[in-house]
Amino acid sequence: MTVPSDADRIAGDVRVVTAAAAADSIAEDAAVAVSGFGSVGYPKAVPQALAASGRDLSLTIISGGSVGDEIDTELVEAGAIARRYPFQTRAASRAAINEDSIAFHDRHIAGLGDDVAFGTLPTPDVAVVEAVSVGEDWFVPSTSIGQTPSFVRNADRLVVEVNDAQPLDLRRLHDVYLPAMPPHREPIPLRRADERIGTPRIPFDADALTAVVRTDTRDATYTFREPTPEVRDLAANLGAFLSDEVRRNPVCEDVVHLQFGVGSIGNALMGELESIDVGGRDLVYYGEVIQDGLLNMLDAGLLSSASATSLALTVEGQDRLFADLNAYADQVVVRPANVSNAPSIIRRLGVLAVNSAVEVDLYGHVNATHVRGTNVVNGIGGSSDFSRHAAVSVIALPSTAAGGDVSRIVPMATHVDLTEHDVSVVVTEQGVADLRGLAPRERAAELITECAHPSFREDLRAYVERAERTGGHIPHDLETAFDWRSAE
Amino acid sequence: MTVPSDADRIAGDVRVVTAAAAADSIAEDAAVAVSGFGSVGYPKAVPQALAASGRDLSLTIISGGSVGDEIDTELVEAGAIARRYPFQTRAASRAAINEDSIAFHDRHIAGLGDDVAFGTLPTPDVAVVEAVSVGEDWFVPSTSIGQTPSFVRNADRLVVEVNDAQPLDLRRLHDVYLPAMPPHREPIPLRRADERIGTPRIPFDADALTAVVRTDTRDATYTFREPTPEVRDLAANLGAFLSDEVRRNPVCEDVVHLQFGVGSIGNALMGELESIDVGGRDLVYYGEVIQDGLLNMLDAGLLSSASATSLALTVEGQDRLFADLNAYADQVVVRPANVSNAPSIIRRLGVLAVNSAVEVDLYGHVNATHVRGTNVVNGIGGSSDFSRHAAVSVIALPSTAAGGDVSRIVPMATHVDLTEHDVSVVVTEQGVADLRGLAPRERAAELITECAHPSFREDLRAYVERAERTGGHIPHDLETAFDWRSAE
Repeated sequence: MTVPSDADRIAGDVRVVTAAAAADSIAEDAAVAVSGFGSVGYPKAVPQALAASGRDLSLTIISGGSVGDEIDTELVEAGAIARRYPFQTRAASRAAINEDSIAFHDRHIAGLGDDVAFGTLPTPDVAVVEAVSVGEDWFVPSTSIGQTPSFVRNADRLVVEVNDAQPLDLRRLHDVYLPAMPPHREPIPLRRADERIGTPRIPFDADALTAVVRTDTRDATYTFREPTPEVRDLAANLGAFLSDEVRRNPVCEDVVHLQFGVGSIGNALMGELESIDVGGRDLVYYGEVIQDGLLNMLDAGLLSSASATSLALTVEGQDRLFADLNAYADQVVVRPANVSNAPSIIRRLGVLAVNSAVEVDLYGHVNATHVRGTNVVNGIGGSSDFSRHAAVSVIALPSTAAGGDVSRIVPMATHVDLTEHDVSVVVTEQGVADLRGLAPRERAAELITECAHPSFREDLRAYVERAERTGGHIPHDLETAFDWRSAE
Repeated sequence: MTVPSDADRIAGDVRVVTAAAAADSIAEDAAVAVSGFGSVGYPKAVPQALAASGRDLSLTIISGGSVGDEIDTELVEAGAIARRYPFQTRAASRAAINEDSIAFHDRHIAGLGDDVAFGTLPTPDVAVVEAVSVGEDWFVPSTSIGQTPSFVRNADRLVVEVNDAQPLDLRRLHDVYLPAMPPHREPIPLRRADERIGTPRIPFDADALTAVVRTDTRDATYTFREPTPEVRDLAANLGAFLSDEVRRNPVCEDVVHLQFGVGSIGNALMGELESIDVGGRDLVYYGEVIQDGLLNMLDAGLLSSASATSLALTVEGQDRLFADLNAYADQVVVRPANVSNAPSIIRRLGVLAVNSAVEVDLYGHVNATHVRGTNVVNGIGGSSDFSRHAAVSVIALPSTAAGGDVSRIVPMATHVDLTEHDVSVVVTEQGVADLRGLAPRERAAELITECAHPSFREDLRAYVERAERTGGHIPHDLETAFDWRSAE
């Protein structure tokens, strides 16, 4: 990796200021849209300067997806965030949201750029973004794109952090495509996951550029837990299901398009992809994040190409990628989230989507976000973008939580993020429940037999018996729906 | 209206048989896909012949949307239906589903054609469709299209009912567009609601044509209740909201695209559209059904054009339309449901969607289908296709049911069809709650103050106070969530 010259990083008449000066230009109660997705590619120095400013801030922070500690820990601990959209993954932000000291609304990823453009969310006063290089009216994003193009277009002002720790050659991966406003929007012309339909640059109005800041700090990336034996069994069941499915599903005739959700389970499942027998078919990843597991697949020649909006790798994964960016550029495309998560393209390609959950109920409703219906974990992210529009929507989760004390297969989900209409198949370490075409009572029987942990099956069957006394298309006993183990 | 000759109705070497003979060609346990949507355009004689056959039938019936009594009453009462997808609106089918004598799974309308093509639902053995005319390898559908093109393409065999009671000139309204299978699917090239991108004919494999039957029976269309004073107040609140929204939302700068859900409330709201002040903007309907209220708007010159998949008119409305089909053809387009309800097009046009519900909870989750979480009413239909992808998603419903005894604003929805992520605004006869950008606790306060009936506000506030003792991002007291009025 060669050290790029300043001229490569900053082109044209652009004034560089300190992070503190840039932070000072942001009003106490500003709506700030930040770059970043999958915990990478987010601005670092300006949020830190805001946190350290000692000012009485009540900011609204809008990110494309999850960002690092500089925003969701340091700014939170400084009491600087009043509102937060649409996703977070840090302990500090999670606690503040659940204690109601930050007002939070999680939103679908695909539509978030439009949420800002249409006024569904606050219009950003300023966009603060990380770049590998900047010019007078463009910049090249770093390790993620997310909804940054829309944020920049809709924000009054722009602050750019040029991060020397992010390689300039990341530009070789990027494909920025900007849709017009409805009703003059054109169909997204993407027909293949490895196709490029835009440019590496995000354009902006030159008058909006308020400050450029130089930084040299790595992303505070995800770290992943080592897969437990339970997760390995889950992965094996998923692999067996997918090996069958690609043979019977007509959308997989020549090529298999896969998506995996974010997180430790997602990463472990990506790693287990090597064991799927796709019968010689081309395997393509069309998702929202690229995690380390996928890099292994690319290196092993098992994956033709990978498209996402974020390089959500560990530090080690980033090192591998950065060491050979030009070679990876033939197979890896990083897109805005309005393209990576676009309903039309997910459906057009026939993606098989695999996402995880907090709990799944007997009738196929999925809680992806709130423990006991109240405490948010991260947010819905892109799980519904993919599950809702996939050719096959798989929910993969361990059958229990809390060391086996809590069943993740429950009578009634305490919060619903994906409805019964959006789930095809549930996989746990116990087995596979194929819910397609089944009526609710049939789904319940299948989920109990195939997916629930044996220690909960009897109580779940007792619930169904109680519920069937009330009757109805979806039998429920509302008195014991959330207290089903202690009932009778 | 001129009476067409046989040559107009039937072209080429096509053998006409009796309905009884056609019914006999269908196996006892066949999966039968039928045309029909919005209670119009469905086959009549063959289902009646099946019901009257005295055979021991256990059919799977897949329709595009709701169909008439010939299918969802007569076949149900004959005990001939074992499985039913994805939507129904008749008392007999509703009762059979809730008594578990018919296995039912409701599915989104937009994806239903793909559900059949991908094997998510059973592959139809035979498609039975209504047409205004038929040739050796094509037919022209009658008063709806729904997912009939996909049903016909995926069914092994085809039975066509040519209905002389449906005018031949209906062909002037139709625009059939057939997408390819993923991953070779192209973007849908529709850019305007009044554009035509296909042909009036649905093609089929000539070898699949098993029988043609002649009929002469009108659709058993919807009848609508006269709007109550409550629904009139609701419509007035909606009109006031929309008049404001079109002025502030950038997607409405030149032209306003609207969708309204099916049913008596939808019809009443369509009728009240005349009172919306759109400030000189073009008004366009892009929805799934055209009801009588829209016809009034077209006749009054208040609507530029209307696109849908069904002419779900009353008999009187059909008479008005049929009397002047050539004139209406300039403004009305009937499309397959995979286009009328396409996520990409709803978003591309920036549709403002208005749908109704059984209940809405304090945090913005919507139950559109199941009373007390158990008894299905009709099905989700296209309400999520539109709400999920609209620029603005409005839920319009009376604040109470059962003569005022039951609040439709509840602490926790007993079934969730639209999540908190998919609802922008709730309107009742009491007022308007704009939930955009609000955190869950803020949404609860807004819904209680603006939308709940005054007689329930105190109990709802008491619930929120109880729930806040538990805390969390979405406060809930799971013990009293469904029994909130009798608590404390």
